[in-house]
Amino acid sequence: MTGRLAIVGLGPGAPELVTPQAAEALAAASDLVGYAPYLARVPEHAGQQRHPSDNRQELARARHALDLAASGRNVAIVTSGDPGIFAMASATFEAVETGAPEWRRIEVTVVPGISAMLAAAARVGAPLGHDFCVLSLSDNLKPWETVLARLEAAAAADFVIVLYNAASTARPWQLGEAFRAIARHRAGATPVVFAHAVSQADERIEIAPLAEADPSHADMRTLIIVGSSATRLVSRGTDAPFVYTPRHAELVAP
Amino acid sequence: MTGRLAIVGLGPGAPELVTPQAAEALAAASDLVGYAPYLARVPEHAGQQRHPSDNRQELARARHALDLAASGRNVAIVTSGDPGIFAMASATFEAVETGAPEWRRIEVTVVPGISAMLAAAARVGAPLGHDFCVLSLSDNLKPWETVLARLEAAAAADFVIVLYNAASTARPWQLGEAFRAIARHRAGATPVVFAHAVSQADERIEIAPLAEADPSHADMRTLIIVGSSATRLVSRGTDAPFVYTPRHAELVAP
Repeated sequence: MTGRLAIVGLGPGAPELVTPQAAEALAAASDLVGYAPYLARVPEHAGQQRHPSDNRQELARARHALDLAASGRNVAIVTSGDPGIFAMASATFEAVETGAPEWRRIEVTVVPGISAMLAAAARVGAPLGHDFCVLSLSDNLKPWETVLARLEAAAAADFVIVLYNAASTARPWQLGEAFRAIARHRAGATPVVFAHAVSQADERIEIAPLAEADPSHADMRTLIIVGSSATRLVSRGTDAPFVYTPRHAELVAP
Repeated sequence: MTGRLAIVGLGPGAPELVTPQAAEALAAASDLVGYAPYLARVPEHAGQQRHPSDNRQELARARHALDLAASGRNVAIVTSGDPGIFAMASATFEAVETGAPEWRRIEVTVVPGISAMLAAAARVGAPLGHDFCVLSLSDNLKPWETVLARLEAAAAADFVIVLYNAASTARPWQLGEAFRAIARHRAGATPVVFAHAVSQADERIEIAPLAEADPSHADMRTLIIVGSSATRLVSRGTDAPFVYTPRHAELVAP
């Protein structure tokens, strides 16, 4: 007997940003697998088994979910944001590829969610209004030289740059080095958005010029957006300015 | 009297991918402004004024919406996908910046939506599972040389590449040239996803190796995802393979 596995994105936190498709997949599941704080966001349903885990061991968590599905259960892996953006979907397909052949017969679906970058961008205006790159700053699974090479390429080609996994207690210096790499190609006045816990109770948004952006203001729940050369502020008196990137772009030297 | 303006993302098409926040903003509006096919997706509410437009003239549409809001109306601009990703949000903030000073006092909010790239990625697996770049191939508002320079930079640094506005009857050759630019840095076997009208009645997904990817299969409703060197297929017998990009990455030459 083979069950099903849905990898479900809860969005950034607020219940009104959970899609009906996600709510339905969660309500229909016999088993919920995921990082404990994400499971805590899901409404309780009678008879549903919960399998909370810590924030590491993504492959082990995916294998556990696939094992349950292979035994006939209807499993949902719960993620924050969108499952496909630096979350559990990639680890799950890696587990399928490297795991038992029968896992390939499990019906696996990905239920998209509002990713942190979309929620953060919406809060400040439209900083992702033109070409952008999205990088994880974590060097747990790739060499730091690769992170730097990608940052330099993105900055030189004048992309807006979105940084996931910008900082944690175990990775305290990477964001400062990333800002310095980008600053070799960008003016000091370039807007940088620090978006912490968007749509949650402790949401905090900060906008700073690149030259004054303080990496210590980021933690593991902070998404960073660094503007392109075209990204602009629209002042509004005492209200926070809007940040947007225009739809048109100038010539970039190849 | 100053009204309000919400720029609302409907997601890719399916009603179950519209967030409750978006549904609420649309139901509360006195006036809906937007491209006619997007307005047609919004449930009717008694007493609500609809202002359909064609797909061009984004600035004029934004100004019309701001004018209505400035006169005290509660306006929603309706967009497909996410309003901040190559949609109406950037044009609206450009209209605010360049428009009447009192427009800066309008309460403007952006309601995020499931973007086409998230929906497309979810359909095939997790192709955006690691660092990626998102570009518009349209050269209406930027020089083609800039598009090419950004493509080359993204390809050389081994990002997954997402292409919006990949093709239209007015821009028939750009996607082929983009594939050739990427192919200078990528193996011919690199997976390319053509995602047409995801979650709509005429959804059509095609996965092809870069060397055989046929640009004529894309139209104005097709999103393109070109894998990085690490992007992989997981075969599943007669079912379509999963496409995913692993969470780990190798060294990229700077």
